[in-house]
Amino acid sequence: MRISARNQIEGVVKKIEKGEVASVVKIEIAEPAILTSMLTKEAVEDLDLKEGDKVEAVIKATEILILKE
Amino acid sequence: MRISARNQIEGVVKKIEKGEVASVVKIEIAEPAILTSMLTKEAVEDLDLKEGDKVEAVIKATEILILKE
Amino acid sequence: MRISARNQIEGVVKKIEKGEVASVVKIEIAEPAILTSMLTKEAVEDLDLKEGDKVEAVIKATEILILKE
Amino acid sequence: MRISARNQIEGVVKKIEKGEVASVVKIEIAEPAILTSMLTKEAVEDLDLKEGDKVEAVIKATEILILKE
Amino acid sequence: MRISARNQIEGVVKKIEKGEVASVVKIEIAEPAILTSMLTKEAVEDLDLKEGDKVEAVIKATEILILKE
Amino acid sequence: MRISARNQIEGVVKKIEKGEVASVVKIEIAEPAILTSMLTKEAVEDLDLKEGDKVEAVIKATEILILKE
Repeated sequence: MRISARNQIEGVVKKIEKGEVASVVKIEIAEPAILTSMLTKEAVEDLDLKEGDKVEAVIKATEILILKE
Repeated sequence: MRISARNQIEGVVKKIEKGEVASVVKIEIAEPAILTSMLTKEAVEDLDLKEGDKVEAVIKATEILILKE
Repeated sequence: MRISARNQIEGVVKKIEKGEVASVVKIEIAEPAILTSMLTKEAVEDLDLKEGDKVEAVIKATEILILKE
Repeated sequence: MRISARNQIEGVVKKIEKGEVASVVKIEIAEPAILTSMLTKEAVEDLDLKEGDKVEAVIKATEILILKE
Repeated sequence: MRISARNQIEGVVKKIEKGEVASVVKIEIAEPAILTSMLTKEAVEDLDLKEGDKVEAVIKATEILILKE
Repeated sequence: MRISARNQIEGVVKKIEKGEVASVVKIEIAEPAILTSMLTKEAVEDLDLKEGDKVEAVIKATEILILKE
């Protein structure tokens, strides 16, 4: 199975915070970088996300902004 | 200046492809990972993006999907 | 492999228009509905998308607006 | 009134979950498909969304990823 | 017809640049502010967008980042 | 520091609602217009956002839809 999203970064789930309908998941990608994803709580439960899970962060190319000094 | 986006990844511009109104920029973040961003050609020109530029890829937490085996 | 995106709709690629760096793909989901996706040309080539391909349209829950009369 | 979003799918609101500031709305589009949308609770209240409401799910073409086996 | 997007800003189309599959539209919202939107060329043609058209820029709340000095 | 996002609108924070993991921030941009942004609660705390703060709302060009009568 391949996905059109140009960006897939391997990482490990470090922390999950569940709100009532939204959740925030912290993914450690390469020491010491951490990605933060906000998604539905349902998605977190449906994937049975737990700290320590190996996951991939998937980001569509149109969603990346560029910052330059 | 601080930005609310939870994800800022340092990298170096590796390649720029300009279309008529859109452009695609490849950012090397950590060997051998490459991020791909699609944005307006105007933005690329306005930031004067060139290969070798140090930049940050900025991604809002709501834009990150999670993939799990 | 499971993805956090709450929305995955099966369909068939009906038409592909390639621009210089962007592409537009038409996906027939259920007669006569057609979804339209804009993505990088690179993604279209990397997945080797052709008319007639069975695909899934994947949409994160935060990206859906609701319209009501 | 016309909107630039390429994707408008008719459906019926099946379920609404309200969090403190976010809400998740389930839209039945064609048996047995269900779309999931996450939006502000304010939007849900402002449109007076109720189960059984006829709505349209609106998705911009840049927000659709493609998955292929 | 009401839309869940929290942000609707009235403006006037100032300039349209058409690429092969994407287009960029400049919308003047209040002197001298200009919004820039990138969308499919098809959407521009479907709405028959022309310079001088009165339009509304529609932005979902999850798509707005905040920058602070 | 420059950002690729084509749209940066100056405003003042009017109201902040914090949910468990998400927050909604109201930004007054020009009397009487108000922008609404949904982001992680963490971002709101990290930027130490308070009512009265001068901020910029940042919006990528791919995230703006156009509505026409």
